[in-house]
Amino acid sequence: MRSFIEVSPESHFPIQNLPYGVFKLKVGSLPVCGTAIGEYVIDLSMLEQKGYFRQTLLGDEKIFSRPSLNAFMAKGREAWKQVRAVLQTALSDENPMFRDDKDLQKIAVIPMKDVVMCLPAEIGDYTDFYSSREHATNVGIMFRGKDNALMPNWLHIPIGYHGRASSIVVSGTNVIRPKGQTKPANSENPVFGPSKLLDFELEMGFFIGPGNQLGETISIEQTYDHIFGMVLVNDWSARDIQTWEYQPLGPFLAKNFATSVSPWIVTMEALEPFKVKGPDQEPVPMEYLRSTGNWSYDINLDVYIKTESLKEPFKISGSNFKYMYWNIRQQLAHHTINGCNTKTGDMMASGTISGPTKDSYGSMLELTWRGENPIKLPDGEERKFINDGDIVIMKGYCKGDGYNVGFGEVAGKILPAK
Amino acid sequence: MRSFIEVSPESHFPIQNLPYGVFKLKVGSLPVCGTAIGEYVIDLSMLEQKGYFRQTLLGDEKIFSRPSLNAFMAKGREAWKQVRAVLQTALSDENPMFRDDKDLQKIAVIPMKDVVMCLPAEIGDYTDFYSSREHATNVGIMFRGKDNALMPNWLHIPIGYHGRASSIVVSGTNVIRPKGQTKPANSENPVFGPSKLLDFELEMGFFIGPGNQLGETISIEQTYDHIFGMVLVNDWSARDIQTWEYQPLGPFLAKNFATSVSPWIVTMEALEPFKVKGPDQEPVPMEYLRSTGNWSYDINLDVYIKTESLKEPFKISGSNFKYMYWNIRQQLAHHTINGCNTKTGDMMASGTISGPTKDSYGSMLELTWRGENPIKLPDGEERKFINDGDIVIMKGYCKGDGYNVGFGEVAGKILPAK
Repeated sequence: MRSFIEVSPESHFPIQNLPYGVFKLKVGSLPVCGTAIGEYVIDLSMLEQKGYFRQTLLGDEKIFSRPSLNAFMAKGREAWKQVRAVLQTALSDENPMFRDDKDLQKIAVIPMKDVVMCLPAEIGDYTDFYSSREHATNVGIMFRGKDNALMPNWLHIPIGYHGRASSIVVSGTNVIRPKGQTKPANSENPVFGPSKLLDFELEMGFFIGPGNQLGETISIEQTYDHIFGMVLVNDWSARDIQTWEYQPLGPFLAKNFATSVSPWIVTMEALEPFKVKGPDQEPVPMEYLRSTGNWSYDINLDVYIKTESLKEPFKISGSNFKYMYWNIRQQLAHHTINGCNTKTGDMMASGTISGPTKDSYGSMLELTWRGENPIKLPDGEERKFINDGDIVIMKGYCKGDGYNVGFGEVAGKILPAK
Repeated sequence: MRSFIEVSPESHFPIQNLPYGVFKLKVGSLPVCGTAIGEYVIDLSMLEQKGYFRQTLLGDEKIFSRPSLNAFMAKGREAWKQVRAVLQTALSDENPMFRDDKDLQKIAVIPMKDVVMCLPAEIGDYTDFYSSREHATNVGIMFRGKDNALMPNWLHIPIGYHGRASSIVVSGTNVIRPKGQTKPANSENPVFGPSKLLDFELEMGFFIGPGNQLGETISIEQTYDHIFGMVLVNDWSARDIQTWEYQPLGPFLAKNFATSVSPWIVTMEALEPFKVKGPDQEPVPMEYLRSTGNWSYDINLDVYIKTESLKEPFKISGSNFKYMYWNIRQQLAHHTINGCNTKTGDMMASGTISGPTKDSYGSMLELTWRGENPIKLPDGEERKFINDGDIVIMKGYCKGDGYNVGFGEVAGKILPAK
């Protein structure tokens, strides 16, 4: 399958991917929905106007000329599949309809460099899980010692907590170093000031398509039909604020100053070829969390840092989504087992995705082991945590046969505290 | 000040109150905004249509013919004051304009029994604080013993966490008993089933009017201009689910199955006469949490239970909002000190409001001391926690000179698990 639009073999966005996002023109325009192919954005509101989706469940509804993907996400899997099929056919080099319609191409095929990406969804509620066994174990060893590393509940429950939806920002948004209360080890009283231990967390998130009513559960067999697609997530964390505030109700100001997401939502259809078996689960989870089949995904995840003095981003971690102990179906089944309702556009993130080796950890906290082993950068500088001016970049991609299905990146630069 | 509409001395809704809510007619109508007076709802969309608010900052904007108060809440204090003045004048028995306009009254003055109240706001994010020293101490004694009752951070930080916005429901909505994982003390492994320790938490919440941008703080002096008004909140809690799940990231499924709120938002203007000094704070809070003046409110809070066999609701607790250690200005200043943004319609709840005496505790957990001292009901039954079929009713009111400024009630009935 090839597109009439040229796509380099390294591109994250071949015709096999076709992620969805929201963009506006740099010269100024209202935000609308698009898909990505190679170095181009396809303006789906234009294709919609031309009637490309008339034969799908969308009919004549103007669903892509909106500033978020929510209306499309609410339509459900059958509609998503139909639209994907239309797009793959339209973009194929074997089909003349779009290929030979130079007028439509002039308005609907836009170089990526000419657009600004926006947040892809209106996110009502944001939940953050804690589903990497390696991450939970690393943090547990640091804070409670090796013998009590994993909490007793961890192997039974996909632990999660509610995050702040309002401060989710799209890749490229600068992040201001938060101020707050911390309690240095040598101080009797807490002190106030900019966080000194600013960290990233390498995560991925999925978006809810159709939701469920309050009081209804989503059984693990039904979960897949409620999951639209995935993005990269950087769950910025101020470790010193977190340590002082988090007992007994969990992280709050240590996290809610910003959470960055990649702009392109890669659909579950595009990820289908990259399904793999997840880690063995022992003890066997309770029945409502049990399912057959492969529900993990082989997604390579790399973290880079670009300091002010570095010429190129420097890779500091290489992890993989497949390391996650609890999978996205288990997360959603757990989230709703008590009747909690979800809504279209809700985002659920994985928690830090750490791999088994030291170079695959998903946070500075783990990579430098609380700052004990600073990361040495190629220009001689060191990092224990993230400095002002540093840019953290996360990339994610699945390796197909001669192509990638990628997420692009989520990047954010830290600005000094105000 | 008296209204031409009759208001009994016991009413929560005299002309001194004028809370805002969203309602629809029982016979069927689109939801619109209203205010309450005595036993009546005033349809503000009708007054708006008649031009009553033309001289205010609202101008000719149709702000009350919407299904939420968000647009009005976004307008800010000056607009709120102007509209309140218009309403007090219009409803006064000394002013003929509305008093003698029988045609307008026919469509705009609706008996409360003919309406269904809706959720008053679109709530983007919901934060729950933990600001009652008595509650935190009681829970601390039960779970960690008397010597470590209050966490070391508690007297320095208005501890809070993010709750679930999607499952906030209006008073009168039935609540289904949640199912989930719990770990009985005598069991090696967790078990699955309906919660056996279902509880209420007596709380109040405030709504954000104009929000703040990401990266900006709201200083404690500015906080008041961002606070629109308050409601009663029942933060339903499944104690057995909570105990097993909450380490280390806080409550999740134990809370997010439902949070009930009273339908009428009482404005800060109506609460102004009931300002009182809060508890002394020692140690003195950090500068960003320090302010002068009285920022607590004398609001009586009563909790009733109505079981299937009881003829009348039975009062099981009498507390007061003034017991709160951290006030709403401190909560909002803290929430934004790291640059976290807030949006119009966000709700921030107080945490359980327990008073100093055993009959003023704000949860069954505390009232029965984990079930050790069951509450005896007048018909001989007992309650350790909340049973299926029980209705929990919370009422709140300020006692003025010959009138009340009240919140009405927040009520919810527990239905058996599915």
